[in-house]
Amino acid sequence: MIDNADQLDEVLEAIATFPGPKILVHGGGSLASRMEESMGLEPKMVQGRRVTSKASLEVVTMVYAGRINKEIVALLQKHGANGIGLAGPDGNIIRTRRRAAEPIDFGFVGDVEHVNASMLNAFLDLGLLPVISAITHDGRGQLLNTNADTMAAEVAMAMSKHYDVDLVMTFEKAGVLNEKGEVIPAINHAKYETLKEEKVILDGMIPKLDNAFRALSEGVETVKLVSPQYLLDPNIEYTNVVRS
Amino acid sequence: MIDNADQLDEVLEAIATFPGPKILVHGGGSLASRMEESMGLEPKMVQGRRVTSKASLEVVTMVYAGRINKEIVALLQKHGANGIGLAGPDGNIIRTRRRAAEPIDFGFVGDVEHVNASMLNAFLDLGLLPVISAITHDGRGQLLNTNADTMAAEVAMAMSKHYDVDLVMTFEKAGVLNEKGEVIPAINHAKYETLKEEKVILDGMIPKLDNAFRALSEGVETVKLVSPQYLLDPNIEYTNVVRS
Repeated sequence: MIDNADQLDEVLEAIATFPGPKILVHGGGSLASRMEESMGLEPKMVQGRRVTSKASLEVVTMVYAGRINKEIVALLQKHGANGIGLAGPDGNIIRTRRRAAEPIDFGFVGDVEHVNASMLNAFLDLGLLPVISAITHDGRGQLLNTNADTMAAEVAMAMSKHYDVDLVMTFEKAGVLNEKGEVIPAINHAKYETLKEEKVILDGMIPKLDNAFRALSEGVETVKLVSPQYLLDPNIEYTNVVRS
Repeated sequence: MIDNADQLDEVLEAIATFPGPKILVHGGGSLASRMEESMGLEPKMVQGRRVTSKASLEVVTMVYAGRINKEIVALLQKHGANGIGLAGPDGNIIRTRRRAAEPIDFGFVGDVEHVNASMLNAFLDLGLLPVISAITHDGRGQLLNTNADTMAAEVAMAMSKHYDVDLVMTFEKAGVLNEKGEVIPAINHAKYETLKEEKVILDGMIPKLDNAFRALSEGVETVKLVSPQYLLDPNIEYTNVVRS
């Protein structure tokens, strides 16, 4: 969605008109990898997650928290929504802890320790639409890269203490697909386990669904996995992640 | 100051302990130019101001609003100040209008139209320390590059409706220098005009002092031109910009 300027503008226009308070969480699409390549750095992924060297952290901070974040906010403003671009250190909204180097050293990657729901709440009360990039901090001056799906789930969980939260996770597919490539309308944890065993659900879908089920079990009302197109047309196919 | 990591940390520690509400405004130091060079873009300056092509705008947005802004905020958090990194579109705090292409085409450069003092005030009331990068927006989805000194002056002027504002402009010298290279302790507008005629004050100092005198005439209480060292030791030399 971030890699397609026209679609991004259209989707943000739709989001700007959604009723009620809302929060966006985003990563960097393919732009961060392309930027790393253009600077002679080689993007390195393990288990669908980026390994973040010091140089790579500088690039993702520039791309996620700088260019993409400010472009999203400028487009929201154009469409009349009062966006505010934030990363973890801003207002201390998301503090993480650098992940241990064992069993896999992911580099400058942080796991969420605390979401400052009261600050996010104060922003919502000011009529703002927080747009959070997947860059966090450890409270001791170190920026850290954090998985955007995990952050979205953690923010949804924290906000569920104040609101009935619907978590909508957009990605490049229309939903969770079965062995025929068709969208599964609803998936519960038992079905998820079966499809994992059958190797129908693989790779990047696993942490995404783990986050989805964790959010559901921690107070989030509904969780959907959708394509960006769903934000323009809620009648198209998508996957509901359900308790039972 | 931004180009020296140790000094930046020390200065931000000092700023974190200053009493009372405060706002930081920053540009990008030499990092933006170095980044442009590493990407094969040639930095272009006219009259001490950057000419901003589309590619150059993307770089300054990444460097100012991304990397430098988030590093500053993470360091402020480390030192116990609740920083919040912002660019113009965030909370619609600074709206600019793209500068006309005549007489000089500066490219994607915006001149300040409106500072949202009430939103900045709301952030100060939440105990936040706004850290504003010199990237703005035109309200129609376009990001624009804006001179950091001008933004600092405009923010100071807008906030002077709510507060007694002291504007401290840091730069690479200890203050305004006379023909012998000594710091001038106080400069008024008449003296400024004389030193300009005598070609003692030149180039980048001219817009800086124009901003300083404009701020003074528009409600800002005091304006100082200082080196970063002043923030660590207020007893060293600096220049006071004065009304008469």
